[in-house]
Amino acid sequence: MNSSMVMSEKEWLACCGSAKFAQEMVSAGPFSNYQEAVDAARDIWFNKVDVNGWLEAFAAHPAIGESASKTSKSPTSAQWSKGEQSTALATATDATLQELYDWNAHYRQKFGFVFLICASGRSTPEILAEIKRRYGNRPIIEFDLAANEQMKITELRMSKLFSANATAGSITKTPH
Amino acid sequence: MNSSMVMSEKEWLACCGSAKFAQEMVSAGPFSNYQEAVDAARDIWFNKVDVNGWLEAFAAHPAIGESASKTSKSPTSAQWSKGEQSTALATATDATLQELYDWNAHYRQKFGFVFLICASGRSTPEILAEIKRRYGNRPIIEFDLAANEQMKITELRMSKLFSANATAGSITKTPH
Repeated sequence: MNSSMVMSEKEWLACCGSAKFAQEMVSAGPFSNYQEAVDAARDIWFNKVDVNGWLEAFAAHPAIGESASKTSKSPTSAQWSKGEQSTALATATDATLQELYDWNAHYRQKFGFVFLICASGRSTPEILAEIKRRYGNRPIIEFDLAANEQMKITELRMSKLFSANATAGSITKTPH
Repeated sequence: MNSSMVMSEKEWLACCGSAKFAQEMVSAGPFSNYQEAVDAARDIWFNKVDVNGWLEAFAAHPAIGESASKTSKSPTSAQWSKGEQSTALATATDATLQELYDWNAHYRQKFGFVFLICASGRSTPEILAEIKRRYGNRPIIEFDLAANEQMKITELRMSKLFSANATAGSITKTPH
């Protein structure tokens, strides 16, 4: 017997805001465990979602240090975003937060999308150092880096989704 | 004494359909020769135009084997596009042209933008082999490749622009 998770398009969309990603995950599932789902998610994100889909997923994130309520269509995503930024917010001062706002604006001006970083466990000074370093990149390099950060965020959210669904007892027993 | 070319935003837009590219070329100019303009164009295209600008430039091209009249906002660009595809059209049969249409559709479906190739001097069988080979690429790899093809097309068009303006006597003599 294997236990498999049945996730909805809406749940996948909370992990990654690309409609194509969410649709493909539904088609590829159900998955018998977290690792199987992550393998599928990586394949879909890097090989099947096109550059417009990447931009769509990036657009679902708030600027780092800001609230997700304006950008995210998903309440789950907005709540997770807040949790992921808890270390950053705990280590921020008014001055560093202002500096982060300014760099977010510079970054968006240059690259045309939000600065994306898997913020979990990172302090505001660390994030500031990263945005300054990455600002010097060529747009295509930064686009690729942002997609890799998005995948890290997606995996983190998927692990929460699997835990939550397991706790809620939504595991479906399927014959082997 | 140097002779320098004064080009308009509209002329640069006929070389590359990104508004940012055209604006930055006007700001960077005038250029005393073709090579100086090409150096500036490469820097602007690869370092300053963001991924949205790349997509904007790609969207100004017709699908290969098709007329530019529907996609291009620039009559000059449409005319150049026709010239660039003259070898392809001369070597096409009804069957290879149909195959190219089909592959263009597959390509757009996978990558979300038009298949871009510097077609000048390339036969339809060569172009068909390229689209089939490139179809297997990851979206980000193909995006980068397409941007390099766009730059080749831009350089070819810039050389035509410089020749045309020199012939028309639009060279402005500026003091050294």
